[in-house]
Amino acid sequence: MELPQKLQAAVDQLGKIPGVGSKTALRQVLSLVRWDKTRLFEFSEAFKELASIKQCETCGLYSDEEQCHICSKSKRVEQGCICVVENISDCIAIEKSQTFFGTYFILGGVLNPLLGIGPNELKLDRLFKRIDHEGVQSLILAINPSVEGDATCSYIRQKVEDHVSVERIGFGVPMGGSLEYLDSLTISKALENRKKF
Amino acid sequence: MELPQKLQAAVDQLGKIPGVGSKTALRQVLSLVRWDKTRLFEFSEAFKELASIKQCETCGLYSDEEQCHICSKSKRVEQGCICVVENISDCIAIEKSQTFFGTYFILGGVLNPLLGIGPNELKLDRLFKRIDHEGVQSLILAINPSVEGDATCSYIRQKVEDHVSVERIGFGVPMGGSLEYLDSLTISKALENRKKF
Repeated sequence: MELPQKLQAAVDQLGKIPGVGSKTALRQVLSLVRWDKTRLFEFSEAFKELASIKQCETCGLYSDEEQCHICSKSKRVEQGCICVVENISDCIAIEKSQTFFGTYFILGGVLNPLLGIGPNELKLDRLFKRIDHEGVQSLILAINPSVEGDATCSYIRQKVEDHVSVERIGFGVPMGGSLEYLDSLTISKALENRKKF
Repeated sequence: MELPQKLQAAVDQLGKIPGVGSKTALRQVLSLVRWDKTRLFEFSEAFKELASIKQCETCGLYSDEEQCHICSKSKRVEQGCICVVENISDCIAIEKSQTFFGTYFILGGVLNPLLGIGPNELKLDRLFKRIDHEGVQSLILAINPSVEGDATCSYIRQKVEDHVSVERIGFGVPMGGSLEYLDSLTISKALENRKKF
């Protein structure tokens, strides 16, 4: 059935969000269309506002101010430690664990020559500048394990290992995981990463 | 982790859509925030536009014009037949089946005294007026089977059975369904609704 133009436009827009198919989008729009004017305007404005969101000058995290709430917090204990992550969701995941108290550097991706993503696209020079200026002592690479992720880690290490200690997060069996259901690569990593008990 | 205000506002708004939880909303907003300004504005505008969508004066379907594309189409063959449905999604489902060629009447719900939904809320008088003025010969009640749905059907029938023929859609085993997995109520309905073969 051909939908009214306005409905179809809203369905098309929602369908552009990754993971939202046309059926889901239609269902959602049919519930949105019953909202009153004020609620719909608030809804609409929230997304317009996203266009003007800032990125923290220091770490690249989305922020309301020039400096994000993590970088501007003088209370963060491990001032000399930067955790390098791929994107903001990784940063959120680490913050949720409440076990890291340094600052972050968000790459916004990993090196990928095939897609034309080089050190400049990741603004790695800003990371290197921070290492020079902030008295950083250690770098934790919390980059996901993948061919590109590994390459990115190697690149960063090679550039900074003379100045700071570089560590990468541990790989192995996840908590609550079962060896039975894990892939062989994870198991071999877990064996490789065994520690004295 | 506390999110920047603008991100959080967008997450909150998306989370208001039924079926979208806060995790999904966050994931979606993190992908929206990477869109450029123009795309975000188009996205935002589409929902603002929804506030000004019209409802067809005849059948209640959402429409760009005063009359929806179904009511205004003189080509619809079964002009004397109105199909009564609960909401626009039901109408879309029937249109998809490409087997009904009359016009619709969208109730927007079913009678529910506990929720204060009476004949006036469903604008049933508009349906009765149409029956009087349009020379309607038959009414197909495509209202979902439920206590309230059944009551709504009975109410409509009682009001109009002297003027038009009133039919309700068939209930039974769905195509591709298997008796083994169906509930007893459907099976007893299917037995009740058996036809000479």
